[in-house]
Amino acid sequence: MSETWLPTLLTETPEDGFQLAIKLSRLGVKFTQPSAEVREALRPSYAENADSLIATSHVIAVHFQTVASANGYWRHDA
Amino acid sequence: MSETWLPTLLTETPEDGFQLAIKLSRLGVKFTQPSAEVREALRPSYAENADSLIATSHVIAVHFQTVASANGYWRHDA
Amino acid sequence: MSETWLPTLLTETPEDGFQLAIKLSRLGVKFTQPSAEVREALRPSYAENADSLIATSHVIAVHFQTVASANGYWRHDA
Amino acid sequence: MSETWLPTLLTETPEDGFQLAIKLSRLGVKFTQPSAEVREALRPSYAENADSLIATSHVIAVHFQTVASANGYWRHDA
Amino acid sequence: MSETWLPTLLTETPEDGFQLAIKLSRLGVKFTQPSAEVREALRPSYAENADSLIATSHVIAVHFQTVASANGYWRHDA
Amino acid sequence: MSETWLPTLLTETPEDGFQLAIKLSRLGVKFTQPSAEVREALRPSYAENADSLIATSHVIAVHFQTVASANGYWRHDA
Repeated sequence: MSETWLPTLLTETPEDGFQLAIKLSRLGVKFTQPSAEVREALRPSYAENADSLIATSHVIAVHFQTVASANGYWRHDA
Repeated sequence: MSETWLPTLLTETPEDGFQLAIKLSRLGVKFTQPSAEVREALRPSYAENADSLIATSHVIAVHFQTVASANGYWRHDA
Repeated sequence: MSETWLPTLLTETPEDGFQLAIKLSRLGVKFTQPSAEVREALRPSYAENADSLIATSHVIAVHFQTVASANGYWRHDA
Repeated sequence: MSETWLPTLLTETPEDGFQLAIKLSRLGVKFTQPSAEVREALRPSYAENADSLIATSHVIAVHFQTVASANGYWRHDA
Repeated sequence: MSETWLPTLLTETPEDGFQLAIKLSRLGVKFTQPSAEVREALRPSYAENADSLIATSHVIAVHFQTVASANGYWRHDA
Repeated sequence: MSETWLPTLLTETPEDGFQLAIKLSRLGVKFTQPSAEVREALRPSYAENADSLIATSHVIAVHFQTVASANGYWRHDA
Protein backbone atom coordinates (compact mmCIF):
# COMPACT_ATOMS: atom_id res chain seq x y z
CA MET A 1 0.00 0.00 0.00
CA SER A 2 1.30 3.47 -0.76
CA GLU A 3 2.00 5.81 2.11
CA THR A 4 -1.01 7.88 1.17
CA TRP A 5 -3.79 5.40 1.94
CA LEU A 6 -4.93 7.52 4.92
CA PRO A 7 -3.56 11.05 4.50
CA THR A 8 -6.22 12.64 6.70
CA LEU A 9 -9.47 12.00 8.56
CA LEU A 10 -10.91 15.25 7.24
CA THR A 11 -13.50 15.03 4.48
CA GLU A 12 -15.50 17.59 2.59
CA THR A 13 -18.90 16.11 3.36
CA PRO A 14 -20.63 13.60 5.67
CA GLU A 15 -21.00 11.27 2.68
CA ASP A 16 -17.26 11.27 2.11
CA GLY A 17 -16.83 10.67 5.82
CA PHE A 18 -19.09 7.64 5.67
CA GLN A 19 -17.10 6.27 2.74
CA LEU A 20 -13.91 6.79 4.74
CA ALA A 21 -15.45 4.84 7.64
CA ILE A 22 -16.19 1.97 5.24
CA LYS A 23 -12.61 2.12 3.99
CA LEU A 24 -11.23 2.02 7.53
CA SER A 25 -13.38 -0.98 8.44
CA ARG A 26 -12.04 -2.83 5.40
CA LEU A 27 -8.45 -1.82 6.20
CA GLY A 28 -8.88 -3.48 9.60
CA VAL A 29 -9.62 -6.71 7.76
CA LYS A 30 -6.90 -6.28 5.15
CA PHE A 31 -4.14 -5.82 7.66
CA THR A 32 -5.23 -8.97 9.48
CA GLN A 33 -5.70 -11.04 6.32
CA PRO A 34 -3.38 -9.55 3.67
CA SER A 35 -4.26 -12.12 1.02
CA ALA A 36 -6.76 -10.61 -1.41
CA GLU A 37 -7.45 -14.11 -2.64
CA VAL A 38 -8.51 -15.36 0.79
CA ARG A 39 -10.58 -12.26 1.45
CA GLU A 40 -12.37 -12.69 -1.86
CA ALA A 41 -13.07 -16.34 -1.11
CA LEU A 42 -14.63 -15.32 2.21
CA ARG A 43 -16.89 -12.73 0.64
CA PRO A 44 -19.99 -14.93 0.15
CA SER A 45 -19.78 -16.11 3.75
CA TYR A 46 -20.44 -12.59 5.03
CA ALA A 47 -22.06 -10.66 2.18
CA GLU A 48 -24.90 -13.15 2.11
CA ASN A 49 -25.18 -13.58 5.87
CA ALA A 50 -27.39 -11.17 7.75
CA ASP A 51 -25.47 -11.29 11.03
CA SER A 52 -22.15 -10.71 9.29
CA LEU A 53 -23.60 -7.72 7.46
CA ILE A 54 -24.90 -6.29 10.73
CA ALA A 55 -21.47 -6.84 12.31
CA THR A 56 -19.83 -5.06 9.38
CA SER A 57 -22.26 -2.18 9.71
CA HIS A 58 -21.32 -2.01 13.41
CA VAL A 59 -17.63 -1.58 12.62
CA ILE A 60 -18.46 1.13 10.11
CA ALA A 61 -20.52 2.87 12.80
CA VAL A 62 -17.58 2.92 15.20
CA HIS A 63 -15.25 4.36 12.56
CA PHE A 64 -17.91 6.87 11.51
CA GLN A 65 -17.97 8.14 15.12
CA THR A 66 -14.27 8.81 14.85
CA VAL A 67 -14.43 10.44 11.43
CA ALA A 68 -17.48 12.55 12.33
CA SER A 69 -15.79 13.77 15.50
CA ALA A 70 -12.61 14.58 13.58
CA ASN A 71 -14.66 16.74 11.24
CA GLY A 72 -16.59 18.57 13.93
CA TYR A 73 -19.65 16.74 12.64
CA TRP A 74 -19.55 18.88 9.49
CA ARG A 75 -21.69 21.41 11.36
CA HIS A 76 -20.78 24.25 9.01
CA ASP A 77 -21.59 22.46 5.78
CA ALA A 78 -25.34 23.09 5.92
CA MET B 1 -27.39 6.81 -4.92
CA SER B 2 -27.62 10.54 -5.41
CA GLU B 3 -25.00 12.76 -3.83
CA THR B 4 -27.55 13.97 -1.30
CA TRP B 5 -28.14 10.79 0.68
CA LEU B 6 -26.36 12.28 3.72
CA PRO B 7 -26.27 16.06 3.36
CA THR B 8 -25.92 16.69 7.08
CA LEU B 9 -25.98 15.05 10.50
CA LEU B 10 -28.10 17.86 11.87
CA THR B 11 -31.77 17.18 12.47
CA GLU B 12 -34.63 19.24 13.79
CA THR B 13 -35.63 16.83 16.55
CA PRO B 14 -34.36 13.78 18.46
CA GLU B 15 -36.92 11.67 16.58
CA ASP B 16 -35.46 12.73 13.27
CA GLY B 17 -32.02 11.99 14.68
CA PHE B 18 -33.09 8.49 15.60
CA GLN B 19 -34.44 7.93 12.10
CA LEU B 20 -31.13 9.15 10.70
CA ALA B 21 -29.31 6.63 12.93
CA ILE B 22 -31.50 3.87 11.50
CA LYS B 23 -30.72 5.07 7.98
CA LEU B 24 -26.98 5.07 8.69
CA SER B 25 -27.10 1.55 10.09
CA ARG B 26 -28.84 0.38 6.92
CA LEU B 27 -26.36 2.24 4.70
CA GLY B 28 -23.58 0.28 6.36
CA VAL B 29 -25.25 -2.89 5.14
CA LYS B 30 -26.12 -1.53 1.69
CA PHE B 31 -22.56 -0.52 0.89
CA THR B 32 -21.33 -4.00 1.87
CA GLN B 33 -24.10 -5.86 0.05
CA PRO B 34 -25.24 -3.60 -2.80
CA SER B 35 -27.76 -6.09 -4.15
CA ALA B 36 -31.26 -5.14 -3.00
CA GLU B 37 -32.38 -8.61 -4.03
CA VAL B 38 -29.92 -10.34 -1.72
CA ARG B 39 -30.70 -7.98 1.15
CA GLU B 40 -34.41 -8.63 0.75
CA ALA B 41 -33.82 -12.39 0.72
CA LEU B 42 -31.90 -12.07 3.99
CA ARG B 43 -34.62 -10.08 5.69
CA PRO B 44 -36.48 -13.01 7.36
CA SER B 45 -33.21 -14.35 8.75
CA TYR B 46 -32.74 -11.26 10.90
CA ALA B 47 -36.16 -9.62 11.25
CA GLU B 48 -37.52 -12.78 12.86
CA ASN B 49 -34.42 -13.56 14.90
CA ALA B 50 -34.15 -11.99 18.33
CA ASP B 51 -30.37 -11.84 18.45
CA SER B 52 -30.15 -10.24 15.01
CA LEU B 53 -32.70 -7.63 16.04
CA ILE B 54 -30.72 -6.85 19.17
CA ALA B 55 -27.54 -6.57 17.08
CA THR B 56 -29.31 -4.20 14.70
CA SER B 57 -30.52 -2.12 17.62
CA HIS B 58 -26.92 -1.99 18.83
CA VAL B 59 -25.68 -0.51 15.54
CA ILE B 60 -28.48 2.06 15.64
CA ALA B 61 -27.40 2.97 19.19
CA VAL B 62 -23.83 3.64 18.06
CA HIS B 63 -24.98 5.84 15.20
CA PHE B 64 -27.45 7.61 17.50
CA GLN B 65 -24.52 8.53 19.75
CA THR B 66 -22.86 10.20 16.79
CA VAL B 67 -25.99 11.99 15.61
CA ALA B 68 -26.97 13.11 19.10
CA SER B 69 -23.50 14.49 19.72
CA ALA B 70 -23.54 16.29 16.37
CA ASN B 71 -26.76 17.98 17.40
CA GLY B 72 -25.60 19.00 20.85
CA TYR B 73 -28.17 16.51 22.18
CA TRP B 74 -30.96 18.86 21.02
CA ARG B 75 -30.69 20.55 24.41
CA HIS B 76 -32.43 23.70 23.21
CA ASP B 77 -35.46 22.02 21.70
CA ALA B 78 -37.33 21.55 24.98
CA MET C 1 -46.37 6.25 16.51
CA SER C 2 -47.20 9.78 17.50
CA GLU C 3 -44.65 12.49 16.84
CA THR C 4 -43.94 12.78 20.55
CA TRP C 5 -42.30 9.42 21.18
CA LEU C 6 -38.91 11.10 21.73
CA PRO C 7 -39.45 14.78 22.51
CA THR C 8 -36.15 15.20 24.33
CA LEU C 9 -33.14 13.33 25.71
CA LEU C 10 -33.31 15.36 28.91
CA THR C 11 -34.66 13.65 32.01
CA GLU C 12 -35.16 14.75 35.57
CA THR C 13 -33.15 11.96 37.16
CA PRO C 14 -30.63 9.21 36.31
CA GLU C 15 -33.41 6.66 36.83
CA ASP C 16 -35.54 8.33 34.21
CA GLY C 17 -32.49 8.45 31.96
CA PHE C 18 -31.98 4.72 32.35
CA GLN C 19 -35.63 4.09 31.47
CA LEU C 20 -35.19 6.27 28.38
CA ALA C 21 -32.15 4.17 27.40
CA ILE C 22 -34.30 1.04 27.68
CA LYS C 23 -36.97 2.68 25.55
CA LEU C 24 -34.43 3.64 22.88
CA SER C 25 -33.01 0.12 22.75
CA ARG C 26 -36.54 -1.22 22.19
CA LEU C 27 -37.27 1.40 19.53
CA GLY C 28 -34.25 0.15 17.60
CA VAL C 29 -35.92 -3.24 17.48
CA LYS C 30 -39.40 -1.90 16.75
CA PHE C 31 -38.31 0.09 13.71
CA THR C 32 -36.56 -3.00 12.31
CA GLN C 33 -39.40 -5.40 13.09
CA PRO C 34 -42.60 -3.32 13.14
CA SER C 35 -44.88 -6.29 13.81
CA ALA C 36 -45.80 -6.42 17.49
CA GLU C 37 -46.99 -9.96 16.93
CA VAL C 38 -43.61 -11.15 15.65
CA ARG C 39 -41.76 -9.30 18.42
CA GLU C 40 -43.98 -10.90 21.04
CA ALA C 41 -43.39 -14.35 19.55
CA LEU C 42 -39.64 -13.79 19.78
CA ARG C 43 -39.76 -12.75 23.42
CA PRO C 44 -39.09 -16.18 24.98
CA SER C 45 -36.09 -16.70 22.71
CA TYR C 46 -34.28 -13.75 24.28
CA ALA C 47 -35.90 -13.15 27.68
CA GLU C 48 -34.98 -16.66 28.75
CA ASN C 49 -31.57 -16.74 27.10
CA ALA C 50 -28.63 -15.42 29.09
CA ASP C 51 -26.57 -14.25 26.12
CA SER C 52 -29.51 -12.40 24.60
CA LEU C 53 -30.16 -10.66 27.90
CA ILE C 54 -26.52 -9.63 28.13
CA ALA C 55 -26.67 -8.33 24.55
CA THR C 56 -29.80 -6.36 25.38
CA SER C 57 -28.11 -4.91 28.46
CA HIS C 58 -25.22 -3.90 26.20
CA VAL C 59 -27.49 -1.89 23.89
CA ILE C 60 -29.05 -0.20 26.90
CA ALA C 61 -25.55 0.69 28.12
CA VAL C 62 -24.70 2.39 24.82
CA HIS C 63 -27.90 4.42 24.86
CA PHE C 64 -27.38 5.27 28.53
CA GLN C 65 -24.00 6.77 27.58
CA THR C 66 -25.79 9.06 25.16
CA VAL C 67 -28.57 10.02 27.56
CA ALA C 68 -26.19 10.56 30.48
CA SER C 69 -23.97 12.77 28.36
CA ALA C 70 -26.99 14.74 27.13
CA ASN C 71 -27.92 15.40 30.74
CA GLY C 72 -24.46 16.45 31.89
CA TYR C 73 -24.47 13.25 33.96
CA TRP C 74 -27.09 14.82 36.25
CA ARG C 75 -24.18 16.25 38.25
CA HIS C 76 -26.34 18.86 39.95
CA ASP C 77 -29.03 16.50 41.24
CA ALA C 78 -27.09 15.32 44.30
CA MET D 1 -37.86 -1.17 42.96
CA SER D 2 -37.77 1.93 45.08
CA GLU D 3 -37.29 5.28 43.41
CA THR D 4 -33.80 5.52 44.81
CA TRP D 5 -32.12 2.67 42.94
CA LEU D 6 -30.01 5.17 40.95
CA PRO D 7 -29.92 8.49 42.81
CA THR D 8 -26.69 9.65 41.20
CA LEU D 9 -23.80 8.58 38.98
CA LEU D 10 -21.34 10.23 41.32
CA THR D 11 -19.28 7.98 43.57
CA GLU D 12 -16.60 8.61 46.12
CA THR D 13 -13.99 6.37 44.56
CA PRO D 14 -13.16 4.48 41.33
CA GLU D 15 -13.97 1.24 43.16
CA ASP D 16 -17.45 2.46 43.98
CA GLY D 17 -17.78 3.57 40.36
CA PHE D 18 -16.88 0.10 39.14
CA GLN D 19 -19.47 -1.42 41.45
CA LEU D 20 -22.05 1.03 40.09
CA ALA D 21 -21.14 -0.07 36.55
CA ILE D 22 -21.76 -3.68 37.58
CA LYS D 23 -25.10 -2.67 39.08
CA LEU D 24 -26.12 -0.84 35.90
CA SER D 25 -25.22 -3.83 33.73
CA ARG D 26 -27.44 -6.02 35.92
CA LEU D 27 -30.27 -3.50 35.85
CA GLY D 28 -30.25 -3.75 32.07
CA VAL D 29 -30.95 -7.45 32.43
CA LYS D 30 -33.49 -7.03 35.24
CA PHE D 31 -35.66 -4.60 33.33
CA THR D 32 -35.71 -6.98 30.34
CA GLN D 33 -36.33 -10.11 32.41
CA PRO D 34 -38.11 -8.99 35.59
CA SER D 35 -38.50 -12.52 36.98
CA ALA D 36 -35.81 -13.17 39.60
CA GLU D 37 -36.64 -16.86 39.31
CA VAL D 38 -35.88 -16.97 35.59
CA ARG D 39 -32.71 -14.91 36.01
CA GLU D 40 -31.51 -17.25 38.75
CA ALA D 41 -32.21 -20.29 36.58
CA LEU D 42 -30.11 -18.74 33.80
CA ARG D 43 -27.16 -18.06 36.06
CA PRO D 44 -25.19 -21.28 35.40
CA SER D 45 -25.56 -20.78 31.66
CA TYR D 46 -23.50 -17.61 31.79
CA ALA D 47 -21.48 -17.72 35.03
CA GLU D 48 -19.84 -20.93 33.89
CA ASN D 49 -19.44 -19.94 30.26
CA ALA D 50 -16.33 -18.03 29.27
CA ASP D 51 -17.88 -16.14 26.38
CA SER D 52 -20.85 -15.04 28.47
CA LEU D 53 -18.52 -13.80 31.17
CA ILE D 54 -16.50 -11.84 28.62
CA ALA D 55 -19.73 -10.36 27.24
CA THR D 56 -20.80 -9.37 30.75
CA SER D 57 -17.42 -7.77 31.37
CA HIS D 58 -17.92 -5.84 28.13
CA VAL D 59 -21.22 -4.35 29.30
CA ILE D 60 -19.61 -3.39 32.60
CA ALA D 61 -16.81 -1.67 30.64
CA VAL D 62 -19.32 0.44 28.69
CA HIS D 63 -21.10 1.51 31.87
CA PHE D 64 -17.78 2.18 33.57
CA GLN D 65 -16.94 4.62 30.75
CA THR D 66 -20.12 6.51 31.57
CA VAL D 67 -19.60 6.49 35.33
CA ALA D 68 -15.92 7.42 35.06
CA SER D 69 -16.74 10.32 32.77
CA ALA D 70 -19.51 11.50 35.12
CA ASN D 71 -16.98 11.59 37.92
CA GLY D 72 -14.29 13.43 36.00
CA TYR D 73 -12.29 10.22 36.20
CA TRP D 74 -11.83 10.84 39.94
CA ARG D 75 -8.74 12.86 39.03
CA HIS D 76 -8.68 14.68 42.36
CA ASP D 77 -8.85 11.62 44.60
CA ALA D 78 -5.18 10.74 44.36
CA MET E 1 -10.40 -7.92 47.81
CA SER E 2 -8.80 -5.10 49.69
CA GLU E 3 -10.25 -1.62 49.36
CA THR E 4 -7.26 -0.57 47.31
CA TRP E 5 -7.76 -2.69 44.20
CA LEU E 6 -8.57 0.43 42.13
CA PRO E 7 -7.22 3.49 43.94
CA THR E 8 -6.99 5.61 40.79
CA LEU E 9 -7.30 5.52 37.01
CA LEU E 10 -4.15 7.61 36.68
CA THR E 11 -0.99 5.84 35.58
CA GLU E 12 2.53 6.97 34.90
CA THR E 13 2.75 5.64 31.36
CA PRO E 14 0.58 4.32 28.52
CA GLU E 15 1.97 0.84 29.24
CA ASP E 16 0.74 1.00 32.81
CA GLY E 17 -2.58 2.26 31.50
CA PHE E 18 -2.88 -0.73 29.20
CA GLN E 19 -2.15 -3.07 32.09
CA LEU E 20 -4.84 -1.33 34.12
CA ALA E 21 -7.29 -1.86 31.25
CA ILE E 22 -6.47 -5.57 31.31
CA LYS E 23 -7.01 -5.62 35.06
CA LEU E 24 -10.38 -3.91 34.73
CA SER E 25 -11.52 -6.36 32.07
CA ARG E 26 -10.64 -9.24 34.39
CA LEU E 27 -12.38 -7.59 37.34
CA GLY E 28 -15.57 -7.52 35.30
CA VAL E 29 -15.33 -11.29 35.05
CA LYS E 30 -14.29 -11.80 38.67
CA PHE E 31 -17.24 -9.92 40.09
CA THR E 32 -19.62 -11.97 37.94
CA GLN E 33 -17.93 -15.31 38.66
CA PRO E 34 -16.25 -14.95 42.06
CA SER E 35 -14.99 -18.55 42.15
CA ALA E 36 -11.31 -18.65 41.17
CA GLU E 37 -11.70 -22.38 40.68
CA VAL E 38 -14.47 -22.00 38.10
CA ARG E 39 -12.61 -19.21 36.32
CA GLU E 40 -9.48 -21.32 36.14
CA ALA E 41 -11.44 -24.25 34.73
CA LEU E 42 -12.84 -21.99 32.01
CA ARG E 43 -9.45 -20.71 31.00
CA PRO E 44 -8.71 -23.22 28.20
CA SER E 45 -12.13 -22.55 26.67
CA TYR E 46 -11.19 -18.95 25.92
CA ALA E 47 -7.38 -18.77 25.95
CA GLU E 48 -7.23 -21.32 23.16
CA ASN E 49 -10.20 -19.97 21.22
CA ALA E 50 -9.55 -17.21 18.70
CA ASP E 51 -12.98 -15.59 18.96
CA SER E 52 -12.83 -15.50 22.75
CA LEU E 53 -9.41 -13.90 22.61
CA ILE E 54 -10.69 -11.27 20.18
CA ALA E 55 -13.66 -10.62 22.47
CA THR E 56 -11.32 -10.24 25.43
CA SER E 57 -9.16 -7.83 23.45
CA HIS E 58 -12.33 -5.86 22.70
CA VAL E 59 -13.16 -5.42 26.38
CA ILE E 60 -9.60 -4.32 27.05
CA ALA E 61 -9.95 -1.76 24.24
CA VAL E 62 -13.06 -0.26 25.82
CA HIS E 63 -11.38 0.04 29.21
CA PHE E 64 -8.25 1.45 27.59
CA GLN E 65 -10.41 4.23 26.11
CA THR E 66 -11.51 5.11 29.62
CA VAL E 67 -8.05 4.94 31.15
CA ALA E 68 -6.43 6.86 28.28
CA SER E 69 -9.04 9.60 28.54
CA ALA E 70 -8.58 9.78 32.32
CA ASN E 71 -4.88 10.35 31.76
CA GLY E 72 -5.26 12.99 29.07
CA TYR E 73 -3.78 10.43 26.69
CA TRP E 74 -0.40 10.88 28.43
CA ARG E 75 0.26 13.73 25.99
CA HIS E 76 2.99 15.23 28.17
CA ASP E 77 5.08 12.10 28.55
CA ALA E 78 6.79 12.34 25.19
CA MET F 1 8.44 -7.29 26.42
CA SER F 2 10.68 -4.31 26.84
CA GLU F 3 9.36 -1.31 28.69
CA THR F 4 9.13 0.62 25.48
CA TRP F 5 6.40 -1.32 23.71
CA LEU F 6 3.97 1.60 24.12
CA PRO F 7 5.96 4.77 24.79
CA THR F 8 3.23 7.10 23.56
CA LEU F 9 -0.14 7.24 21.80
CA LEU F 10 1.06 10.12 19.65
CA THR F 11 1.90 9.37 16.03
CA GLU F 12 3.08 11.46 13.14
CA THR F 13 0.29 10.51 10.76
CA PRO F 14 -3.15 8.87 10.68
CA GLU F 15 -1.56 5.85 8.99
CA ASP F 16 0.84 5.41 11.88
CA GLY F 17 -2.12 5.81 14.24
CA PHE F 18 -3.98 3.04 12.46
CA GLN F 19 -0.95 0.77 12.73
CA LEU F 20 -0.77 1.55 16.44
CA ALA F 21 -4.44 0.60 16.80
CA ILE F 22 -3.67 -2.74 15.15
CA LYS F 23 -0.74 -3.22 17.53
CA LEU F 24 -2.94 -2.47 20.55
CA SER F 25 -5.61 -4.92 19.43
CA ARG F 26 -2.94 -7.63 19.14
CA LEU F 27 -1.47 -6.74 22.52
CA GLY F 28 -4.88 -7.38 24.06
CA VAL F 29 -4.66 -10.92 22.72
CA LYS F 30 -1.01 -11.42 23.63
CA PHE F 31 -1.48 -10.51 27.27
CA THR F 32 -4.39 -12.96 27.52
CA GLN F 33 -2.63 -15.76 25.62
CA PRO F 34 1.13 -15.24 26.12
CA SER F 35 2.11 -18.35 24.18
CA ALA F 36 3.21 -17.37 20.68
CA GLU F 37 2.88 -21.01 19.72
CA VAL F 38 -0.78 -21.19 20.72
CA ARG F 39 -1.56 -17.87 19.04
CA GLU F 40 0.10 -19.03 15.84
CA ALA F 41 -1.88 -22.28 15.91
CA LEU F 42 -5.10 -20.28 16.23
CA ARG F 43 -4.29 -18.04 13.30
CA PRO F 44 -6.09 -20.03 10.57
CA SER F 45 -9.23 -20.20 12.71
CA TYR F 46 -9.66 -16.44 12.55
CA ALA F 47 -7.65 -15.23 9.54
CA GLU F 48 -9.76 -17.41 7.28
CA ASN F 49 -13.06 -16.79 9.03
CA ALA F 50 -15.08 -13.78 7.94
CA ASP F 51 -16.78 -13.17 11.29
CA SER F 52 -13.48 -13.35 13.17
CA LEU F 53 -11.94 -10.85 10.75
CA ILE F 54 -14.89 -8.50 11.24
CA ALA F 55 -14.53 -8.86 15.01
CA THR F 56 -10.83 -8.09 14.75
CA SER F 57 -11.57 -5.04 12.63
CA HIS F 58 -14.03 -3.95 15.34
CA VAL F 59 -11.37 -4.05 18.05
CA ILE F 60 -9.02 -2.06 15.81
CA ALA F 61 -11.79 0.51 15.33
CA VAL F 62 -12.19 0.97 19.08
CA HIS F 63 -8.46 1.46 19.57
CA PHE F 64 -8.31 3.79 16.57
CA GLN F 65 -10.93 5.99 18.30
CA THR F 66 -8.59 6.26 21.26
CA VAL F 67 -5.47 6.92 19.20
CA ALA F 68 -7.21 9.42 16.92
CA SER F 69 -8.58 11.33 19.91
CA ALA F 70 -5.14 11.33 21.55
CA ASN F 71 -3.72 12.93 18.42
CA GLY F 72 -6.40 15.57 18.05
CA TYR F 73 -7.45 13.70 14.90
CA TRP F 74 -4.27 14.89 13.17
CA ARG F 75 -6.24 17.99 12.14
CA HIS F 76 -3.12 20.01 11.42
CA ASP F 77 -1.47 17.51 9.09
CA ALA F 78 -3.45 18.49 5.99
